[in-house]
Amino acid sequence: MTIACVIHGALDLRMEVETPRPLGPTDVLLRLGAGGICGSDLHYFQHGRVGAFVVREPLVPGHEASGVVLQVGAAVDRVKPGQRVAINPSHPCGVCDYCRAGRGNLCRKMFFLGSASVFPHAQGLFREQFVMGQAQLTPIREAHISLGELACAEPLSIGLHAITRAGSVLGETVLITGGGTIGCMSVMAARLAGAAEVIVCDINDRALEMARTVGADRAIRSDQVDPGSLADLADVTIEAAGNAAALATCLSATRRGGRIIQVGTLPAELMFPANSLMARELDYRGCFRAHLEFDWAVQAIRTRRVDVRPLISAQLPLAESKAAFEMALDRTRTTKVQVVLVD
Amino acid sequence: MTIACVIHGALDLRMEVETPRPLGPTDVLLRLGAGGICGSDLHYFQHGRVGAFVVREPLVPGHEASGVVLQVGAAVDRVKPGQRVAINPSHPCGVCDYCRAGRGNLCRKMFFLGSASVFPHAQGLFREQFVMGQAQLTPIREAHISLGELACAEPLSIGLHAITRAGSVLGETVLITGGGTIGCMSVMAARLAGAAEVIVCDINDRALEMARTVGADRAIRSDQVDPGSLADLADVTIEAAGNAAALATCLSATRRGGRIIQVGTLPAELMFPANSLMARELDYRGCFRAHLEFDWAVQAIRTRRVDVRPLISAQLPLAESKAAFEMALDRTRTTKVQVVLVD
Amino acid sequence: MTIACVIHGALDLRMEVETPRPLGPTDVLLRLGAGGICGSDLHYFQHGRVGAFVVREPLVPGHEASGVVLQVGAAVDRVKPGQRVAINPSHPCGVCDYCRAGRGNLCRKMFFLGSASVFPHAQGLFREQFVMGQAQLTPIREAHISLGELACAEPLSIGLHAITRAGSVLGETVLITGGGTIGCMSVMAARLAGAAEVIVCDINDRALEMARTVGADRAIRSDQVDPGSLADLADVTIEAAGNAAALATCLSATRRGGRIIQVGTLPAELMFPANSLMARELDYRGCFRAHLEFDWAVQAIRTRRVDVRPLISAQLPLAESKAAFEMALDRTRTTKVQVVLVD
Amino acid sequence: MTIACVIHGALDLRMEVETPRPLGPTDVLLRLGAGGICGSDLHYFQHGRVGAFVVREPLVPGHEASGVVLQVGAAVDRVKPGQRVAINPSHPCGVCDYCRAGRGNLCRKMFFLGSASVFPHAQGLFREQFVMGQAQLTPIREAHISLGELACAEPLSIGLHAITRAGSVLGETVLITGGGTIGCMSVMAARLAGAAEVIVCDINDRALEMARTVGADRAIRSDQVDPGSLADLADVTIEAAGNAAALATCLSATRRGGRIIQVGTLPAELMFPANSLMARELDYRGCFRAHLEFDWAVQAIRTRRVDVRPLISAQLPLAESKAAFEMALDRTRTTKVQVVLVD
Repeated sequence: MTIACVIHGALDLRMEVETPRPLGPTDVLLRLGAGGICGSDLHYFQHGRVGAFVVREPLVPGHEASGVVLQVGAAVDRVKPGQRVAINPSHPCGVCDYCRAGRGNLCRKMFFLGSASVFPHAQGLFREQFVMGQAQLTPIREAHISLGELACAEPLSIGLHAITRAGSVLGETVLITGGGTIGCMSVMAARLAGAAEVIVCDINDRALEMARTVGADRAIRSDQVDPGSLADLADVTIEAAGNAAALATCLSATRRGGRIIQVGTLPAELMFPANSLMARELDYRGCFRAHLEFDWAVQAIRTRRVDVRPLISAQLPLAESKAAFEMALDRTRTTKVQVVLVD
Repeated sequence: MTIACVIHGALDLRMEVETPRPLGPTDVLLRLGAGGICGSDLHYFQHGRVGAFVVREPLVPGHEASGVVLQVGAAVDRVKPGQRVAINPSHPCGVCDYCRAGRGNLCRKMFFLGSASVFPHAQGLFREQFVMGQAQLTPIREAHISLGELACAEPLSIGLHAITRAGSVLGETVLITGGGTIGCMSVMAARLAGAAEVIVCDINDRALEMARTVGADRAIRSDQVDPGSLADLADVTIEAAGNAAALATCLSATRRGGRIIQVGTLPAELMFPANSLMARELDYRGCFRAHLEFDWAVQAIRTRRVDVRPLISAQLPLAESKAAFEMALDRTRTTKVQVVLVD
Repeated sequence: MTIACVIHGALDLRMEVETPRPLGPTDVLLRLGAGGICGSDLHYFQHGRVGAFVVREPLVPGHEASGVVLQVGAAVDRVKPGQRVAINPSHPCGVCDYCRAGRGNLCRKMFFLGSASVFPHAQGLFREQFVMGQAQLTPIREAHISLGELACAEPLSIGLHAITRAGSVLGETVLITGGGTIGCMSVMAARLAGAAEVIVCDINDRALEMARTVGADRAIRSDQVDPGSLADLADVTIEAAGNAAALATCLSATRRGGRIIQVGTLPAELMFPANSLMARELDYRGCFRAHLEFDWAVQAIRTRRVDVRPLISAQLPLAESKAAFEMALDRTRTTKVQVVLVD
Repeated sequence: MTIACVIHGALDLRMEVETPRPLGPTDVLLRLGAGGICGSDLHYFQHGRVGAFVVREPLVPGHEASGVVLQVGAAVDRVKPGQRVAINPSHPCGVCDYCRAGRGNLCRKMFFLGSASVFPHAQGLFREQFVMGQAQLTPIREAHISLGELACAEPLSIGLHAITRAGSVLGETVLITGGGTIGCMSVMAARLAGAAEVIVCDINDRALEMARTVGADRAIRSDQVDPGSLADLADVTIEAAGNAAALATCLSATRRGGRIIQVGTLPAELMFPANSLMARELDYRGCFRAHLEFDWAVQAIRTRRVDVRPLISAQLPLAESKAAFEMALDRTRTTKVQVVLVD
């Protein structure tokens, strides 16, 4: 028997014992390496829901995780016991029109771990042991790459997907609103993709400091500058703060013909300068999860072309998940908080 | 001496006499063929302004025109006296960063005929005779194509630019809000580009009838259907009605991962479902004027692959410009009204 | 018991009796509507092979087919008995890297009907009855669209894929070498996608006549013109003749910065003007089978936006398959020959 | 009076005195900073020609240069006396169809410095002083960036243009044939653009060592490996060696659906596996000069995101141009040789 972190409703998080399901021929039994707490995990914890997705049965959260292979099914050929692996939480169906068109992140039958978007819920990864199909796993040979770093592949894939949505940023100026985890992942993705200059705006000094650490060329307290000073500054803006003021900054900072990528979760409705979008021929693009970028993220982390280590603010034992969630809520003190297994 | 239509301010349109400027070596003296009255011309006429562009000196309106060559400068080699020509009103600078990047419609130093966007104003084409650089002219040999049709090249280029902005629509469903001139030009552009189905929404029966005439497969009274019935209907929506309700229709009708093209002039601010754009990974793209599409439009008209004739509701003598403008204001009775010279 | 056309080796085609396999829950039992003979079918018939794909066991040819639903499995919800359907012969795996990237036609585990590319062979559709998964079928309500037309969806998808590979041809000039089935399908695809001018070259008058019939603006006897006269004529060229001279025509006819799409099967090696490709910044793109274009083709046929009827030169009873193959070999007299069931 | 390096024909290079032309209002008088010797300069020196471009009057070679502003015309506002500048040798016309489409490098009326492609020739930059329009100049404030580095902006722009032609390489494997200047610039461009792995093939150990120095992850002696070992290794290959064997390596190393970018100058004709291009749906793309990438290159050099210093093998005084050209001919000992002014 093993333990798992289970959310029963708002502020009702319990550690429970469970038995992993039996292995099918292409399945793999894994032990948790590290598991990062994401904004959606926090929403389930605080409010028992993320937007329209409501916790209707006990839900194990967690979709940013790495693991160690314990046991493999008869037909498994991608991994071996003892290997450390990155885990892709996204299971597109492979047959719907979106999947066929190469947009698996929009799959009509998406099964995404740690999510109440389907019922029964897609149980997540904040548990001692779990079973996964081998197709979700990428083994990592590099001994110097930690399980904590590997668990950052999923959030990094979000930053990379923002760049995919932006199109080539080579030689361009990219401005990012928000210096939290996704903002910082976007900074590193923009740098990786050859942006000439990366600028981050936030109203929190710690976030700006972190953004600088991971590669921002400039970090701006957006509440302390004249908004006009940011006008037409960037070819691409990435909204990763999730509030209307940040979107307004993006709209103003994007030069004519530029692109605005919406990664953050915004209010359902807000005031929008629709005519300016037309007259300046802007592109305002939604950005939802990621697809092929997961593999790129694993590759970038294993070679340290992207160094995610500064983002990992704290690691707590899985058994102390509740404390970890509470710590993660304080965004003025932490960026990424992870739960881990300590031997 | 020749006559010209001159707007001095709101509702102050006068016919005046003038003398065309002398010919430079690459200039051409033209006689007006036909000149279509566009929405922006109507705004200058009604309000003395189009948004931020205010009539600050007498302005000759008109940027949708065809002509006949009267006389050519010493170095002119593109056209000959007597030829009928399509006229491109757009003069991008060719050297700014937008021009170099192939986005001439966003040129930093754009000189666009019939517009108060610069001062002194860029005088337009609703005049008996005018001088143009030869680079703006495309001669047309096809005797059966009328000067009225040729004058539709510019508005057709707007519809084609909407398709350029949408990307390939081959095999896709395109929904267009608004069955006015630009809506109908978008219908024809979408058909030309291989859309599998073209749907038009409007609240005016005459507009819907016109849309059907020029190629719409379905025409829907958007005020008479359950909005939910339009949900996820289209891969691409083109907003050509210029009001918030139409944009709402577009946002709802665009399926996940689809594109919304904003061609119409909207209010400066409106309520917008920002979070839905993100979660459905929509692309909301502004669309401003046109660029290479002008040449495509001329080609499509001269071969009648696009037949614009149904859109020309009325042609009045240039001398009766005021009556023409007043007729054009009544959109329930006309689509495109043109001023012409009658021998 | 039903009959099937079976190729045992070069020039060894037999009609044999067989029993269709039992229906799984998502399977459909179909009766052949019409089946078009493709160039690869002819290669199997004449040579017992297509390039590296050798007939190593009896092979039922045929991948261009339509059918009528006879019986459906318990879980089938896409089609009903009695319906007429278009049949997609392409089964990409949905999970390999190419499938995930939206390039199913390059699937690592492709199962393509009527092909010896895998062993056991992927048995084809020239048989009285056959069982297919429902995902391959598109039911057609339009009573006036014949089963023969529907069977042209697959070859039309090849022409459409050539256009996909070319990128937007809106407003451009497209030159196609070869006026056979694929050349003509490419003509119709280029027209559908808004090409301003479509030119076809061939050395056969009948092929040129057919190309004109299906929409070519110009048809040129390439053996009777000065090669220089074709230079820089086209933005896009599509090589659908399958010989080195045709490719040379394409290379010369493509203007600087243009694209050459290789659809035809060429010799394994030929002389190539590599330096000219560089100095003129050409794009020379391979084109293999099709993917999403199958659905576009069905849609274009059912609405007759593409009218394939002129291409169907002859229809013979399935029982006379051998005669049909022999007739198809004579390309100076036929374009598309189909086998059909006659009640 | 100032000195200039002048090529009169094959192996006839002379130092001559001259007087710079007078300044127009937007012109700038510059003193040479550094000038890199390019492969085309070497061809003029050795053979008196580059392919079809023959030296028909005395030609000053040199198009890779930096300079210091001596004097400015009355209307100059981009630079000031004393400033160090990067110099863009490319003058597209801004009005032809290629320029309007954003492909200035293919301009019909290109004026490219140091080239015999036009007559009178476009005189180059290997001279003590010269006059340029201000639009060609980018001033550099960074005191720690040398004039030698700045002179590498032009060759770096070629590597960046190869990446532009390849499309996004983010997360991909890029193989480059040739470890000379352009090969190494392509390595750095591929790294800048986020390639996951960069591999270089050459038959020269010094070139491979240099490629590793500037960022290649693997460097392979292509003459010492089994060609099969390279098969399907890369998503993108860049041919920068300029010989048929290297192209063969590229064709084999590019996996299905991948892209081959031809930067090197190849023989006018060579044997080519045309059918494999089709069946593997490859893209084989020519790559000619550069366009917007010049500005990206300047930006990358001034921020040292790309560090070109290892590539500068030697700098000789302008007065010793002949020795510099002779040194540059020995590619086993040098990568980039520059002529400079020594005070």
